[in-house]
Amino acid sequence: MTSGSTLGPASPARLGEPVGPGVGIVETQHVRLFDASHPLTLVSGAVLTEVDVAYETYGELNDEGTNAVFICHALTGDAHAAGFHEGARKPGWWDNLIGPGRPVDTDRLFVVSANLLGGCQGTTGPTSVNPETGREYALDFPLLQMADFVTVHRALLAHLGVRRLLAAVGGSLGGMQVLQWVLTHPEDMTHAVIIAASSRLTAQNIAFSAVAREAIKRDPGFAEGRYREEGTTPTFGLSIARMMAHITYLSEEGLAEKFGRRFQDSETPRHGFGADFAVESYLNYQGEAFLNRFDALSYLYLTRVMDYFDAFADIDEANPGDAFAAVQAAGTKFCVLSFDTDWRFDTSHSRRIAHVLERGRLPVTFREIPSVWGHDSFLLPIPAYHDTLRAFLERAQEEVL
Amino acid sequence: MTSGSTLGPASPARLGEPVGPGVGIVETQHVRLFDASHPLTLVSGAVLTEVDVAYETYGELNDEGTNAVFICHALTGDAHAAGFHEGARKPGWWDNLIGPGRPVDTDRLFVVSANLLGGCQGTTGPTSVNPETGREYALDFPLLQMADFVTVHRALLAHLGVRRLLAAVGGSLGGMQVLQWVLTHPEDMTHAVIIAASSRLTAQNIAFSAVAREAIKRDPGFAEGRYREEGTTPTFGLSIARMMAHITYLSEEGLAEKFGRRFQDSETPRHGFGADFAVESYLNYQGEAFLNRFDALSYLYLTRVMDYFDAFADIDEANPGDAFAAVQAAGTKFCVLSFDTDWRFDTSHSRRIAHVLERGRLPVTFREIPSVWGHDSFLLPIPAYHDTLRAFLERAQEEVL
Repeated sequence: MTSGSTLGPASPARLGEPVGPGVGIVETQHVRLFDASHPLTLVSGAVLTEVDVAYETYGELNDEGTNAVFICHALTGDAHAAGFHEGARKPGWWDNLIGPGRPVDTDRLFVVSANLLGGCQGTTGPTSVNPETGREYALDFPLLQMADFVTVHRALLAHLGVRRLLAAVGGSLGGMQVLQWVLTHPEDMTHAVIIAASSRLTAQNIAFSAVAREAIKRDPGFAEGRYREEGTTPTFGLSIARMMAHITYLSEEGLAEKFGRRFQDSETPRHGFGADFAVESYLNYQGEAFLNRFDALSYLYLTRVMDYFDAFADIDEANPGDAFAAVQAAGTKFCVLSFDTDWRFDTSHSRRIAHVLERGRLPVTFREIPSVWGHDSFLLPIPAYHDTLRAFLERAQEEVL
Repeated sequence: MTSGSTLGPASPARLGEPVGPGVGIVETQHVRLFDASHPLTLVSGAVLTEVDVAYETYGELNDEGTNAVFICHALTGDAHAAGFHEGARKPGWWDNLIGPGRPVDTDRLFVVSANLLGGCQGTTGPTSVNPETGREYALDFPLLQMADFVTVHRALLAHLGVRRLLAAVGGSLGGMQVLQWVLTHPEDMTHAVIIAASSRLTAQNIAFSAVAREAIKRDPGFAEGRYREEGTTPTFGLSIARMMAHITYLSEEGLAEKFGRRFQDSETPRHGFGADFAVESYLNYQGEAFLNRFDALSYLYLTRVMDYFDAFADIDEANPGDAFAAVQAAGTKFCVLSFDTDWRFDTSHSRRIAHVLERGRLPVTFREIPSVWGHDSFLLPIPAYHDTLRAFLERAQEEVL
């Protein structure tokens, strides 16, 4: 659910090297997809009369409009999935996966990545100005559901002239969006890749997000969501939320391997309340860095979409019968991946998705990838993981192109 | 690490009923164990010239002073382990374990339970008045180490005329204290019971405590620890800390069984940021209730003792050799217990303790108890757990009494 690897220099023996030079310099584009004459009606019935979307593309769309791959980002991700922004030192958050010769091969594929509705990186969200009031929406922004994300991204694909996706690919929240998308609009894609995701959160999943939101909401600087108008900032709540969430993105083994009980600045304990252990210093850094790149209101809105998401709510999971008839007719093929040390969305989440789809007579490739890095593994160039994605997408290209 | 079951009404099929009527009405006692003429020197070298201890006793000490059991409480526990305070509706936090005919049988045993140094329930801690300044210590209170807890409780036992403990029994932090105690003063006890504990925290364990402390420290109401003088309260930070910690005290399975994705006040989702899911409402309640019974400064001091604790730091764990010669000479026997769904201190923590002691040729009974309730299991009347404790302590009585 993080955007970009948070692990710092990793052991080269365990993580792969990205293939080739990547997609180079890229720029985020912006487009207004809904306006007063063509408003966006949400699942809730609420209407948005101005919806802008920030997106990036890599590679070229073929004449038939059939070689597109849509990248769905995770909770704190954005449209900048690959390449470098002018002058930037860090590439997009999934750069190791996307580029010429990389598993999502931009020599052959046209890749689209867009910021989510409700986000804070260029797509309309709670920090946008409400055209009806001239003020920032803040908590007047309507509650969103997973299907709303899909509606907006479908509009973007229509705008770009994409006829049918060769694949939609997403990790964590992004994988949840792919699942929602393929179940309601299977004709939109021939392949669906769902990584480290869930068809519905558990009580523990919800609990972690709930405490993160409470930390934000109870921060006096949050000012009922009007912090920009009030000139305050919910830095305390947002950084605590991020620090806590961050623990859940890494595995116990990963934390042990990276930090163990090592001290930050000395060989021996200093016996104080400062960040004496290296893991403390790391979490403080993560909490601070997050303040510069994410917004507290978007954190509330996007986590809440995850809580309420329940992909198979209307389906008998044990016996789906013809619940997936439309998906069967569309012929969509699935790749469902999990990581064995992910405890934010452990393998049972992915296994449930795979099992329900299989019982519904849909073609599913399911694999649990060994990795010490927990939930964050989906962002990392783990050889077995990238090899699996590469093979699945190469077969998809053989079938479609 | 909680004081008292937090699970509400539990399924009678899975939890046992307490035996008999319990110890009845009890009262917390207070005694000054260290003063200016006999000060307490801490491991750090710091000196405390006034140390009061709050404690309770149940049952009668025999003439030989050999039937005593010392109860070591967990992070947020206190001296009130069993029975009822006058007019109270809830009994002490380990009442299901302690009483006539219960596993810690007060018909035969003399039970002592005392609040920890650094605590906030009657024993001297950071909220006590510093006799040198006449002001509350706050963050001027010295950092503590596990051995300091032991020093104070040993002084209490001397005061009470206990010659040698039949057993020291503790869960979580309490189990860590028992481990520290038996390694440095094995002659103090013939039996040591270490439940759901750890010889040293992992990076993940430290990380959770670190974020909890950050939530407290960064709360403007914390006022650098001088909140009582300033008339503020770190309610926000302390309740967030508690909510987060609480998630780690329960298992994913326990949360799923108790709450699942159930809504608090309706059959269908309300799609808002309130406590819509039952698990959210529960966590909010736990966070609020904690404010009335615990102190933010004690939370900092006691969690920090756990972080730095490293029982086998000076021992070659793979080959302890004669590291435990003194324990062998004392003849102390160990009971080490864990719970299979505890992920705060999972079974590997207890197994390490058992293995190191065994490699050091000490007699250890180790058992992993099946229980759905995670770390909090140590507080609950789980039949297999209570049966194990009862058998171990009955054998101890046969040997000693």
